[in-house]
Amino acid sequence: MTAVSTESLQGAEGRNGNYPGKGIGAPVGVAVLGMGTVGTEVLRLIHEFSSSLENRIGGPIEVRGVAVSDLTKKRDVLDNFPGITLTDNAHELVEREDVDVVVEVIGGIDYPRELVLSALKHGKSVVTANKALIAAHADEISDAANAAGVDLYYEAAVAAAIPVVGMLRRSLAGDQVQRISGIVNGTTNFILDAMASTGASYEEALAEATRLGYAEADPTADVEGHDAASKAAILASMGFHTRVTYNDVHAEGITNITADDIEAARLAGYTIKLLAICERLVDDEGATTVSARVHPTLVPNEHPLATVDKSYNAVFVEAEAAGRLMFYGNGAGGAPTASAVLGDIVGAARNKIHGGRAPAENPYAHYPVADFGDVPTRYHIDMAVVDRVGVLAEISRRFADQGISISAVRQEEHGDDSRLIVVTHASLERKLAAIVEELKTLDDVRAINSVIRLDG
Amino acid sequence: MTAVSTESLQGAEGRNGNYPGKGIGAPVGVAVLGMGTVGTEVLRLIHEFSSSLENRIGGPIEVRGVAVSDLTKKRDVLDNFPGITLTDNAHELVEREDVDVVVEVIGGIDYPRELVLSALKHGKSVVTANKALIAAHADEISDAANAAGVDLYYEAAVAAAIPVVGMLRRSLAGDQVQRISGIVNGTTNFILDAMASTGASYEEALAEATRLGYAEADPTADVEGHDAASKAAILASMGFHTRVTYNDVHAEGITNITADDIEAARLAGYTIKLLAICERLVDDEGATTVSARVHPTLVPNEHPLATVDKSYNAVFVEAEAAGRLMFYGNGAGGAPTASAVLGDIVGAARNKIHGGRAPAENPYAHYPVADFGDVPTRYHIDMAVVDRVGVLAEISRRFADQGISISAVRQEEHGDDSRLIVVTHASLERKLAAIVEELKTLDDVRAINSVIRLDG
Repeated sequence: MTAVSTESLQGAEGRNGNYPGKGIGAPVGVAVLGMGTVGTEVLRLIHEFSSSLENRIGGPIEVRGVAVSDLTKKRDVLDNFPGITLTDNAHELVEREDVDVVVEVIGGIDYPRELVLSALKHGKSVVTANKALIAAHADEISDAANAAGVDLYYEAAVAAAIPVVGMLRRSLAGDQVQRISGIVNGTTNFILDAMASTGASYEEALAEATRLGYAEADPTADVEGHDAASKAAILASMGFHTRVTYNDVHAEGITNITADDIEAARLAGYTIKLLAICERLVDDEGATTVSARVHPTLVPNEHPLATVDKSYNAVFVEAEAAGRLMFYGNGAGGAPTASAVLGDIVGAARNKIHGGRAPAENPYAHYPVADFGDVPTRYHIDMAVVDRVGVLAEISRRFADQGISISAVRQEEHGDDSRLIVVTHASLERKLAAIVEELKTLDDVRAINSVIRLDG
Repeated sequence: MTAVSTESLQGAEGRNGNYPGKGIGAPVGVAVLGMGTVGTEVLRLIHEFSSSLENRIGGPIEVRGVAVSDLTKKRDVLDNFPGITLTDNAHELVEREDVDVVVEVIGGIDYPRELVLSALKHGKSVVTANKALIAAHADEISDAANAAGVDLYYEAAVAAAIPVVGMLRRSLAGDQVQRISGIVNGTTNFILDAMASTGASYEEALAEATRLGYAEADPTADVEGHDAASKAAILASMGFHTRVTYNDVHAEGITNITADDIEAARLAGYTIKLLAICERLVDDEGATTVSARVHPTLVPNEHPLATVDKSYNAVFVEAEAAGRLMFYGNGAGGAPTASAVLGDIVGAARNKIHGGRAPAENPYAHYPVADFGDVPTRYHIDMAVVDRVGVLAEISRRFADQGISISAVRQEEHGDDSRLIVVTHASLERKLAAIVEELKTLDDVRAINSVIRLDG
């Protein structure tokens, strides 16, 4: 481990001490961990907006150091920061006495977890864009922030610059959130939108997304719903004041969605979106649980989420007093993510200078997380059935016997077979899953083409 | 002036002192000024959510008193607040030592201004939903809050529970806002939407809005754009860190919009919306000014603002790093407005208990407000012209002579006359206004049917 500096540390500190300032506040020392797309953009904006930031904070931001894994790489943006430390020893950097705010934009879980915990323990406020870290370890990290009395910000962890975290933390702090449903993964929205608008297969749309940079070389985390699940955990935690972690979220991805599914949805007036759905559920005895889940969902075309195209994100919130709110924008990318990080840096820096702490994650409500089987959902079941009189009656009876109410049925001739689409009313997920298993055993049912949940 | 109380003050204080609490913080005393729709809903929610609010704040909210103009009126919600003071002496209430946060939901300007200034002077934080007050006197009121070191919150002043003020104050604090355009008046959006969807005249749609409670008995403030102008002033002030007041906003209402205008817009692929537009303008020499204006605007149907129907509000923000963001929801009504007020109360109460201050209005940038004539706009000019060869050439020449570039022309036969629609590219407002005056003098132009600006 080595540290390089274009000026001596002595020099850097001298410069800070001589900061002309405006007599309004001491400089706030910032350490940036990670110089990928987001970290580089954060540094670029700190430089570009330095005068604005100083005015908004009430004191200047001084970047003390940047931690990277590869010290040899040329990084042009650092030319704007003469004298700062470029180091591969992130642990040393986060402990430095002249660092007040640590910005973690490395990604991953275990390594940033160590760094963030160390930073908090050393009294630094932390700003992170790391959804996986927060969704896995919010408890431990929040506790460390509370113990140290410092700030923990992570607006950029969900939907980049769309300020959903701040909205749940502050704007709706006097309200009761009932439900949050959102498109929080741009890659899958791009793929589903491309399939819907061009008729492409999943594989073709994924290839296009990869070619255009919307999907990573290994798209697993996006297309399997893991990324959206992290965000759902964070949204549910903030919205319901209850600790919901990544492991509490039922996640299904979009890899099984076919061009046929998209076309069938279109004909029925729906658009298929990968939704993160967070719900407060109250049972007949008045007991409250919460649910967080991610799955492909049929959204009625007239619902605002249905029109969210390309790689855009949108989050729909229903609160008791506020009613329905929707927030829309770029949910990923270097600049939008950096915007959210910068907003958090300003918040943390203001508090360092003026005192006070941002509202922390506050899981006072301690609602149990509902088992996915106990969550009410609606199914859109597309099956191939034998074309004979009485099939519909027989299948309908099966639903009725299970106490599942049918909302709509559509039957189409296809040669010897008939295509039967059944849309249910809301029923418990476990009952709906069971009826699908039962349908598979019927001689009249040749195949279950697809089962997609329906919302709105 | 008298004060009535269902318990003695002594009793109320005793009760506070004995508050069982959770050992987490002293009670925060709140005074509510005004018991109209919003004030009543605020009190209802404080009661309904009391346990949640206590957990989120870190201490209980105690309503100390409510000021009203009519003490004799029966107010059921007060049954939930035994022992509080109901008074018509608001001045006395805001000075009370056991009041920490004053909530102003009276409306009007002069009387609430006195009360808010007195509250701030006495060290109380203030939460107000009063757009007219903030748009007229932000300078004086912010200065008083800063002098006292207390909080001044007004999320509910713009678009109710849609958290645009918080978003500009905090979430985008590390970004550079370029432009804000929004539908911020529900009454006029209801009227324009009704005209577009039913073909109704302005008068018919206004009557319907009045019947349904979307328009007040005297709709002037809404339909003439005054209400939206107050909100534009606040948005521009927050977004550009510059003091923009109501008088700085150029405002035009919707009273001249005809069913013909709506139909012509529809045929051309546009929807007419009353937009508040706040812009940062940089001239050729790099000098920056800001503009805030309200006027009927042709919005392309594919723009997200075009689909905002009924009395909904939506605010579209363009920032350098975040890109385009949109926020959508109920922009008025008792419950949504109360949700925003409650969120602010939680913020102010947290700061009272834990220290710190919310970011205040901070007009450090001091950009001059551009004269409306110097703002680039686009015109959609609908005129009746004589049906003779050469008319289009003559009119086009007039535009060219003034250096105004034409984006599109459409000509239709109407008996002896011809209808000519000219859509310009962006040009200075004063030049566009001048060409309209010039067109009026031409023998070939029988009438200017309408002039509507175009955006997006």
